[in-house]
Amino acid sequence: MEAINNLNYANLQPKEIREKIRAEQITWNTSGMCAGYAQANLVILPKAQAYDFLLFAQRNPKSCPLLEVSDPGSRSLKYIAQDADIARDIPKYRVYKDGILEGEFTDVAAFWNDELVSFLIGCSFSFESALLEAGVPVRHIEEGRNVPMYITNIPCVPAGIFSGNMVVSMRPIPHSLVVKAVTVTASMPRVHGAPVHIGDPASIGIKDISRPEFGDAVTINDGEVPVFWCCGVTPQSVVMNSKPKFVITHAPGHMFITDIKNVDLKD
Amino acid sequence: MEAINNLNYANLQPKEIREKIRAEQITWNTSGMCAGYAQANLVILPKAQAYDFLLFAQRNPKSCPLLEVSDPGSRSLKYIAQDADIARDIPKYRVYKDGILEGEFTDVAAFWNDELVSFLIGCSFSFESALLEAGVPVRHIEEGRNVPMYITNIPCVPAGIFSGNMVVSMRPIPHSLVVKAVTVTASMPRVHGAPVHIGDPASIGIKDISRPEFGDAVTINDGEVPVFWCCGVTPQSVVMNSKPKFVITHAPGHMFITDIKNVDLKD
Repeated sequence: MEAINNLNYANLQPKEIREKIRAEQITWNTSGMCAGYAQANLVILPKAQAYDFLLFAQRNPKSCPLLEVSDPGSRSLKYIAQDADIARDIPKYRVYKDGILEGEFTDVAAFWNDELVSFLIGCSFSFESALLEAGVPVRHIEEGRNVPMYITNIPCVPAGIFSGNMVVSMRPIPHSLVVKAVTVTASMPRVHGAPVHIGDPASIGIKDISRPEFGDAVTINDGEVPVFWCCGVTPQSVVMNSKPKFVITHAPGHMFITDIKNVDLKD
Repeated sequence: MEAINNLNYANLQPKEIREKIRAEQITWNTSGMCAGYAQANLVILPKAQAYDFLLFAQRNPKSCPLLEVSDPGSRSLKYIAQDADIARDIPKYRVYKDGILEGEFTDVAAFWNDELVSFLIGCSFSFESALLEAGVPVRHIEEGRNVPMYITNIPCVPAGIFSGNMVVSMRPIPHSLVVKAVTVTASMPRVHGAPVHIGDPASIGIKDISRPEFGDAVTINDGEVPVFWCCGVTPQSVVMNSKPKFVITHAPGHMFITDIKNVDLKD
C-alpha cells in the first residue's frame, strides 16, 4: 500500500481536489494541498444561532476573520469557491448535538436543512506561507509538528450566547525578524492579521510555554521571541462553550480548500 | 441672535457634546465638532432585519464598515462610546415606516423597543481629516459644499432582503497626490479604506460628473483626477430600497460623535 503524500496534491487546482474529496477519494487532512490557495475553517450553525455568531465575528475580527457566510440553507458558495458543495467538499466533518460529539463524517448532506448557515473562516496556513516567502522561519513546520496553541487571559468581546477567552497560536521568531513577521502578517487581516502579543507569555496568562493547551510544543532557541497570533480555534472554542443544540465543524486539519490565492488575501 | 458656528465646539470632548445633544442644546449638524474624533452613521433596525443587514455589511465591508453593533434592545454602546444613549445622542433622527418617512425627531426614545439593533458605521469625515493632514486637498471642504455622491453600475453583494448598486463619493485629486490619497485612506479600512476607482467616471456608470445624484458638484481643475471612494450612503440606500417595516437613521450630517480618535482607526 502506497503511503499518502500530500505533496502529490500540491499542484492540483482547488476544484479538482474538491471533486476528489466529494468522491471520497481523499478523506485525510488537507495540509500542503493546492499550494498557494487559501484553506478555510468551517462552522455551520442553524440560523437561530447564526446572528450571534456573525455578531461575534464582527466584534472579534482578528480571531474570527470571515471569508464567506453562506445564504441560509444553501450548500453552495458564491465568492471563495465555484461549484462547491459545502456539505461534501471537506474530507472530515464533526457533528455535535447539545455540545456532544455525535460523530465524524465524510459527508454531512444527511444532516442538511434549510436553516443552516455556513461560516468559512480564514486560516493561519495562508500567513505561514507568506512568512516563509519573506524568509521568516516557521518552527512547527520545520519540526513537523502542529502549531502550539494556548488559552489566554484575554477575553473575547462577547456576542449573544457566545463568549470566552482568546486562543492564540505561537511561533518563535529570531529577534532580527520580529518586525518583518509583524508587517508581513499585518497585511493579511483576513487571515488573523498582525500578532496580538510579542514576548512575555505570562502577561497574557500563559503559565508554561512548553505546555500548550492544543497542538504541540516547539523549540524556542536563544535569541528568539515567542510571537502570538489570534487563532481559528477561538471561534470553535466559543461555539463549543455555548453547547449549541446543533453545530457542524471541520475535523482539525481537514479544511475547505478555496479558489482564493493566499496573495489575494493581502490588503 | 448669535449665528451657530461649529468651530466653537471643535475643542469639546465627545461626552460633553453628546450631553448637550441629549439636552437638545445642540440640534443641528455635527460637522467640525470634536476635532480629531470619529463621527458615525447610524442605522437602527428590528432584529428580524438585523441579520440580513449584518450579513450585508460582512459582504460589503468597504461600503458598510461597522464600528459597533449594539446588543438587541440596548440603548447603550460598549466600545466606541461610554455613557451614550443612542436614542437621544444624535441631534436629528429620521424615522421610516414601510419605507415612508414618518418624520424627523431630536429624540427617538418614544419609538424604542427590545428588538431594535443599532449599527454605527464609519464615516468619510475621518479619512478626510487624514487626507488634509497628509497635504491632500479636499475640494468640497475648500468650496464649503457637501461631497458629491454618485450611483454607480457596481452591484453590492446582496444579502437577504438587501441589495442595490454602490454609491460613491468623489474628490478631485492632483495627479501628483493620487498615490498619497490611496495610501493614506488604504490604512483606514474602518472608514471605507482605499478608493474603489480612479479616473474615468463612465467606466463605473457615471454619465455626468457635474451632476451628482446626492450632495453638490465641485470644481475639477486641469491636472486633477476624479477619485472615488465607497460611501456611507450605500447602506442607507439599500435599506431604503428594501422598504423595511421600521427603520431609524440619523438625518444627513447629524452624526453620532464617538470617543474614538480618527488616528485610532488606522490599522
